[in-house]
Amino acid sequence: MTHSDIDELIRLFSKLPGLGPRSARRVVLTLMRRKEQLMIPLAGTLARALESVRSCSICGNLDTHDPCGICTDARREGTTICVVEDLADLWAIERCNLYRGRYHVLGGTLSAMDDRGPSQLNIEPLIARAAKEEVKEIILATNATIEGQTTAHYLTTRLEGCHVSISRLAQGIPMGGELDYLDDGTLGAALKLRLPF
Amino acid sequence: MTHSDIDELIRLFSKLPGLGPRSARRVVLTLMRRKEQLMIPLAGTLARALESVRSCSICGNLDTHDPCGICTDARREGTTICVVEDLADLWAIERCNLYRGRYHVLGGTLSAMDDRGPSQLNIEPLIARAAKEEVKEIILATNATIEGQTTAHYLTTRLEGCHVSISRLAQGIPMGGELDYLDDGTLGAALKLRLPF
Repeated sequence: MTHSDIDELIRLFSKLPGLGPRSARRVVLTLMRRKEQLMIPLAGTLARALESVRSCSICGNLDTHDPCGICTDARREGTTICVVEDLADLWAIERCNLYRGRYHVLGGTLSAMDDRGPSQLNIEPLIARAAKEEVKEIILATNATIEGQTTAHYLTTRLEGCHVSISRLAQGIPMGGELDYLDDGTLGAALKLRLPF
Repeated sequence: MTHSDIDELIRLFSKLPGLGPRSARRVVLTLMRRKEQLMIPLAGTLARALESVRSCSICGNLDTHDPCGICTDARREGTTICVVEDLADLWAIERCNLYRGRYHVLGGTLSAMDDRGPSQLNIEPLIARAAKEEVKEIILATNATIEGQTTAHYLTTRLEGCHVSISRLAQGIPMGGELDYLDDGTLGAALKLRLPF
């Protein structure tokens, strides 16, 4: 059999997160079956995105222009920078439609296990940005994991020289959370950080 | 934000089987992060496959040429045609590396529920193929579902005029199957169709 393009497609799809060889086969079959509605638009959009999408030289966000739409949006406050590990986290915060400042994407966390030090993260540009006069607050929105918290802690020491206030995301019980099902860490944090009613 | 290509990519990926909006976002992020190893090859292969892959006019298989590699492979026996519902089933049978005949892809099953009659399936070409002298055996490898078996039954009546022997896949306990965990239907069939030891 010589349908090497199909095999290669399956191989590539199976490398995407959440897909294995079997689901990649299903994906490719669906693409072939729905050529007009799916395969042609997907091929086109992929090619276009490849052409147009680039990393923002200021914050590390991805967009079709550099600097990105968030960095150039005059309605957003340049006084606040929200530091996130990853583009996915930036998108998550954007989805909640509350934050009107700018971002800084670290590109990961410090990790002794994976041998990732400060030089491998997008940290120096953050320090430079924080030193600018207009910046008043840095929100450290790293994940509530050990690595995320270690990275946030490291950043606070690095940001000491800059005259900015540093904050972090609130911890507590999630919306709709039932105490009985929460892990001890979350419940403990929620208790310790309890708020006046 | 104006990263419409990214949004469009996510929307398209989320329509693929097994992917939702959330996993589609993860897929697109992975593609962006691993541009060289994943995104560029995927975009290229998709475009190539779109150009080159077509449906075989004989059997309905997908390949880069028509007739497909299986239909034109002289080492495969033209005496046997294995009838499958779907391309995925053809691939499954090819993977077990046992069958050396040719195929016929129906493109689905008869279904009263989904209002799918014989005219919507690739049946007439099968009858024409079966009428050819060289064809000796038709294996009805439809799924062991009600629709699959109904379709197989319908095909046996349609193939009555052709002088071919008609067979179907064996039913029984699957490899490694434990009796205690099998459904009654499978166990019943395995008992009824028991083989001499």
